[in-house]
Amino acid sequence: MPRDLSLIALDWGTSSLRAWRFDGSSTPGEKREFPWGIMKLPNAGVDRDTAFRETLNKVCADWLTASPPCPVIACGMVGSAQGWREAPYAPCPVSLPQLASQLLQIDLGKQRMLNIIPGVVKNGNMPEVMRGEETQIFGALAANKVLQQANEAGEPILIGLPGTHSKWAIVHRNMLSHFHTFMTGELFDALIHHTILGASMVPAEEPQWPAFLEGLEVARSRHSAGLLSTIFSTRTRFLTGQLPQTQQADYLSGLIIGHEMCGLGKLLLDAARPDMPIALIGNDALCDRYQRAFNHYFSARPLHLIKYATENGLWQIAKVAGLFTTDTGKIFHAI
Amino acid sequence: MPRDLSLIALDWGTSSLRAWRFDGSSTPGEKREFPWGIMKLPNAGVDRDTAFRETLNKVCADWLTASPPCPVIACGMVGSAQGWREAPYAPCPVSLPQLASQLLQIDLGKQRMLNIIPGVVKNGNMPEVMRGEETQIFGALAANKVLQQANEAGEPILIGLPGTHSKWAIVHRNMLSHFHTFMTGELFDALIHHTILGASMVPAEEPQWPAFLEGLEVARSRHSAGLLSTIFSTRTRFLTGQLPQTQQADYLSGLIIGHEMCGLGKLLLDAARPDMPIALIGNDALCDRYQRAFNHYFSARPLHLIKYATENGLWQIAKVAGLFTTDTGKIFHAI
Repeated sequence: MPRDLSLIALDWGTSSLRAWRFDGSSTPGEKREFPWGIMKLPNAGVDRDTAFRETLNKVCADWLTASPPCPVIACGMVGSAQGWREAPYAPCPVSLPQLASQLLQIDLGKQRMLNIIPGVVKNGNMPEVMRGEETQIFGALAANKVLQQANEAGEPILIGLPGTHSKWAIVHRNMLSHFHTFMTGELFDALIHHTILGASMVPAEEPQWPAFLEGLEVARSRHSAGLLSTIFSTRTRFLTGQLPQTQQADYLSGLIIGHEMCGLGKLLLDAARPDMPIALIGNDALCDRYQRAFNHYFSARPLHLIKYATENGLWQIAKVAGLFTTDTGKIFHAI
Repeated sequence: MPRDLSLIALDWGTSSLRAWRFDGSSTPGEKREFPWGIMKLPNAGVDRDTAFRETLNKVCADWLTASPPCPVIACGMVGSAQGWREAPYAPCPVSLPQLASQLLQIDLGKQRMLNIIPGVVKNGNMPEVMRGEETQIFGALAANKVLQQANEAGEPILIGLPGTHSKWAIVHRNMLSHFHTFMTGELFDALIHHTILGASMVPAEEPQWPAFLEGLEVARSRHSAGLLSTIFSTRTRFLTGQLPQTQQADYLSGLIIGHEMCGLGKLLLDAARPDMPIALIGNDALCDRYQRAFNHYFSARPLHLIKYATENGLWQIAKVAGLFTTDTGKIFHAI
């Protein structure tokens, strides 16, 4: 049985749900994962509020009913218009204390409250939104000494979150000050599953790095002509015997990530200081891919790979929000 | 009953099949359309050769069995590796007589021959291929006096074929000398049907031109950052109340076609003479859209909209190949 529970933390996204139990320290005591994202709740057919309550109970009824009652915090799409209840976006620039002051509360009964962290919006002609990444970004800042030192010295930091919708964010003087979205992962999936480009692809047993690098190189030399004109080469190189079927996917991956790198250069990096600290948050395989792409385009810049950014961010925001008190305010999982 | 049959002409693509009967003159006497593209033959389960033969008989057994026997010509994906039989690509640059000399013949029996026009390949590091468009391009050249005069004067001509895979081709001194593919139509379809961008779209009763123009404008101002970073604004402008659901599709259409226009500029147009004749081949609605986009980006350039390019090209190639003789060598459908 859990003892001295201090926090239940949830990362509740579109397609999956992760839950951590913190008991007395900033290191989680247990982690659980489920395929029950907000678009995949296991109990369709009941009303939305009931569906979310029942799912939460399936995930951690034992944690929720333990004594004394402990707070629950969540980030991600659970706070979107399609989620449990909409937590209005906090406007960018935004600090961790500002996020912590805007939690949306849902009464779970029996003295338990769910606190949903708002997403962030960058207003303007080309608006940007995020939900969940803000928590990872502040978690990364708290977890990594190099990033902390740069931030405290007043230097901007670039944090990349590759994925379905890749985000690249600038943190400056404790504020998430600026970010851009690239639909890289979702576009790649749509291309390989729903266009002619995927028709002849054969899975490879391991990443085909030469093909990936070739894709990066083509994107660099052809970026001004644009992705619409480069991606068809995935097929024509196959048709002309230049690209084996097992290498098509990694060639296309290199092309698409290469175009993202070119865009990142234009939007953020070309004008930045060469020594700006840069961090990556994401799964190992994807970060490896982005690290290689980054090295190919911006060779002099080392990247910091950040682990445990999500649970770290959830803990930090809950603490600053005063959801619990603790003597052990130390940073954990420092790398 | 048909009389004096001189040619049966087929445009047999991936998703549809069009057939024309020419009887004695260069103006088709009858046209038939079917949804029986090479990937949608009506008689799955039989072997490939039988499936194509049976489909052709369903389409025009009456034409095929008429006396005297007449030649059959076809263009499009019917000559691809997934088609009836593969007609090897003709290398670019290529002329109409060169295409006409490389027809792939299939014996239909009873003194009837099917002649498949080869596609065209542009070899090199970034290969390009087409199947069917080569026939439309030479058909357009034969059908339009302005294009003919420019060609005879030794001036290059640009011909655009918007669609699933948009092609932009240069014809110079009777040769198809150069072309590029943009996966515009297929990418648009994949985005609206298989990504988050389509999730909130509501069909409009008519084209939303202001939203389309706004998409064109965003693509122009943000092309160097790339399509991956602009398309998400289709969603964020909706989320921030700047883009109604009924306008999302046309905004995205403007964005994507705008990126194609920027790429076209970089690849072909920026270095071309401002008075180069430019023609468009395609359905009316799509050509209208491209005409507006073109005017927005390259305002001084008038476009020639070409009708009946496919049937005209099939007739021209059959004639030059000597599949039939005719006294009426006049160009038809001239516009």
